[in-house]
Amino acid sequence: MMNMPALDATHDPARRSWLPAANVPGADFPVQNLPFGVFRATASGRPRIGVAIGDRVLDVVAALEVGCLEVSERVASACHLPQLNGLMGQPVEGRLALREGLSMLLSEGSRLAGDRALHERLFRPIHEVQLLVPADVGDYTDFYASIDHASNVGSMFRPDNPLLPNYKWVPIGYHGRASSVVSSGTAVRRPQGQAKAPEAAEPTFGPSRQLDYELELGAWIAEGNALGSPVPMEAAEGHLFGVSLLNDWSARDIQSWEYQPLGPFLGKNFATTISPWVVSMEALAPFRVPAFARPAGDPPPLPYLDSEENRRFGGLALTLEVRLQSARMRERGTAPVLLSRADFRRMYWTMAQLLSHHTSGGCNLRPGDLLGSGTVSGPSREERGCLLELSWRGQEPIALPSGETRAFLEDGDEVLLTGFAERDGAVRIGLGECRGTILAAVI
Amino acid sequence: MMNMPALDATHDPARRSWLPAANVPGADFPVQNLPFGVFRATASGRPRIGVAIGDRVLDVVAALEVGCLEVSERVASACHLPQLNGLMGQPVEGRLALREGLSMLLSEGSRLAGDRALHERLFRPIHEVQLLVPADVGDYTDFYASIDHASNVGSMFRPDNPLLPNYKWVPIGYHGRASSVVSSGTAVRRPQGQAKAPEAAEPTFGPSRQLDYELELGAWIAEGNALGSPVPMEAAEGHLFGVSLLNDWSARDIQSWEYQPLGPFLGKNFATTISPWVVSMEALAPFRVPAFARPAGDPPPLPYLDSEENRRFGGLALTLEVRLQSARMRERGTAPVLLSRADFRRMYWTMAQLLSHHTSGGCNLRPGDLLGSGTVSGPSREERGCLLELSWRGQEPIALPSGETRAFLEDGDEVLLTGFAERDGAVRIGLGECRGTILAAVI
Repeated sequence: MMNMPALDATHDPARRSWLPAANVPGADFPVQNLPFGVFRATASGRPRIGVAIGDRVLDVVAALEVGCLEVSERVASACHLPQLNGLMGQPVEGRLALREGLSMLLSEGSRLAGDRALHERLFRPIHEVQLLVPADVGDYTDFYASIDHASNVGSMFRPDNPLLPNYKWVPIGYHGRASSVVSSGTAVRRPQGQAKAPEAAEPTFGPSRQLDYELELGAWIAEGNALGSPVPMEAAEGHLFGVSLLNDWSARDIQSWEYQPLGPFLGKNFATTISPWVVSMEALAPFRVPAFARPAGDPPPLPYLDSEENRRFGGLALTLEVRLQSARMRERGTAPVLLSRADFRRMYWTMAQLLSHHTSGGCNLRPGDLLGSGTVSGPSREERGCLLELSWRGQEPIALPSGETRAFLEDGDEVLLTGFAERDGAVRIGLGECRGTILAAVI
Repeated sequence: MMNMPALDATHDPARRSWLPAANVPGADFPVQNLPFGVFRATASGRPRIGVAIGDRVLDVVAALEVGCLEVSERVASACHLPQLNGLMGQPVEGRLALREGLSMLLSEGSRLAGDRALHERLFRPIHEVQLLVPADVGDYTDFYASIDHASNVGSMFRPDNPLLPNYKWVPIGYHGRASSVVSSGTAVRRPQGQAKAPEAAEPTFGPSRQLDYELELGAWIAEGNALGSPVPMEAAEGHLFGVSLLNDWSARDIQSWEYQPLGPFLGKNFATTISPWVVSMEALAPFRVPAFARPAGDPPPLPYLDSEENRRFGGLALTLEVRLQSARMRERGTAPVLLSRADFRRMYWTMAQLLSHHTSGGCNLRPGDLLGSGTVSGPSREERGCLLELSWRGQEPIALPSGETRAFLEDGDEVLLTGFAERDGAVRIGLGECRGTILAAVI
């Protein structure tokens, strides 16, 4: 069974939009992308489903109302909801038909191109709308799928035994907090919590001193599965709707004191930032690559985590980046500085493996559930996806262009995640931005 | 600030119901209890909010419709929802007024007593309705608040170091899975998963061989808190709506292989069973007792986990029990056998401490969120709240009256949790039942 989305006319590199900004080389949202999001045109407006194109948001409901987009009644009804859960739960045929309709509407040759009277009704400048968390997150699960990240962190805490014996067998994950998933741009309050310095006899309660970001990819669940009915590898891709950028903010001092024996809790649950645009698996079709080739000597995945399709196409040719701008840099007009850039092809487990593993004991997933990949790091220093790794637990602070240094995040720091898919013969598509600025703790 | 619900006429031990079954000594649902739930009168019926009284369910919406129950417009609107979230989020005055109205309606002297024509419209036999998960669980968090349970489990896995250094400082908890919280009576499919025997070189994938229950109390969140705004101890009780019984089914073999370093995942997320009746904090007012008195030498709680009120009234005089009936016992008509009975007063952390800790870093709770206490055990063998403890990791199987033995659960076993509050000078109230039967794995 081959479930990978096939390439079709919507991926044609020759296809151009009649909206000029969408054709600028390097633009995140060319007509080949068509990511979904939820926006408010005014602060009190009702949330509406939109599609990003160039520097504009297409109001999907308005496009349906004026009759320039035709879809099944079922898809139309899902498009009228104030979040993407209904659309995410549509069977793949409905999603494909919607994508085809959107592509036609926004490509050169569309009758909409010349109908200026309609443009004001259907489009908003992206920077004038408020972008929301795109779905009601029923459950949020975070994984640990980068072996480079796991090895780095492990070697700090367990120098003799950096990678635990289960790592190459089990896609390690844990349940996160759904209520504190926030939209890009939401300020993040520095949490207070218990921490105990190694040399201290007792813990103290106060603002975290080791606040960190984690550069991750988030995957949104499409159709769900019933409780007690695992999703086999052969069907896993069909349950993925698309991806966003995800910042799994982490208070390392709180986490390291609390996490034994039941895992991270308050060290993670004060905020998780998600980027507003959901790039669909259909848009990512040209960027499917083989799953990470395990080094000789590593065990092959157990049969329930293996498939021919996954070996051949389970990977994603995605590059993820993180930048930081301190308050001083912002005052001086210094652009955010690149901290790391990592290749998602290095992930030890594919998204399909994470999903299939998640359901292997019978756990049910629902449309709009969110899976985090875990911090995306690579083998070199420039590919380390969090400050814990970059500053090696604070021992090697990094230098900023302002002359400041950072072991961990300071109040006023803004963290900016970006990402894109790029491959010969395909038009580059971007994931947009995931931003958050640290506010001082309230004591 | 004293937030504990005061005793009022609804707690008066002299108050009796005109429904005879509610006055039977030892009944779970006397007129002093009035727990809320959600039921369906027919398989295709719309879920409706009900209140248990004796052996009947009062249809709250019907009572509002016929005008024999008067509440504010806001409370009435919450009572029309198909789950309890709206009612849980009401300010305490609204909840108290509803309780007073229900108590009057169901007590001797109510005009309803003689109005037989209305009885059929307003009441259903409990055993004829389908009882549902009472709220949409936004997030489910499970704690580890019994020091006896933590010490027992710790000594199996770390004989030299049973209780980790953080235990007496941090109310240990982790995020669970909300999607797989199921109603009492739902059959539980034995999960498959990865496990590795200590002597094996590699893990294998197959049905869990160490399936277990955990006897817990579940607490439902009332009003929520905003992200970034912790709930101080002095306000914590006001954010608790009530309690149910909770069975945190656990696959010990899957859990022990996967849980390092990020905690339990597939070992727990295949099902969590909740009892249908939510006994309100108002109903529990007569059963408030001092928080557990820490032994000399234990550190006092840090100030953010301490309050005068909590020390005096933070505990609950609740007794929880677990029974088991194997398929063979069922065939022979042998009643379920008592496996353990534990006193909730032994819990090292109170519900208020769990809630306040949960929010201390800014994490937001929402009405209808669910907190599990963790397995409720005591110091003696008869008080061990799971088979892992009772059979000491399978080394000492327990004997059943059928001649069978159990190290862990077998297919066909039914686990039954019950609980009650009892105290001199108050009418005993019960929590109802939490049931689940194990189905064979689907291979």
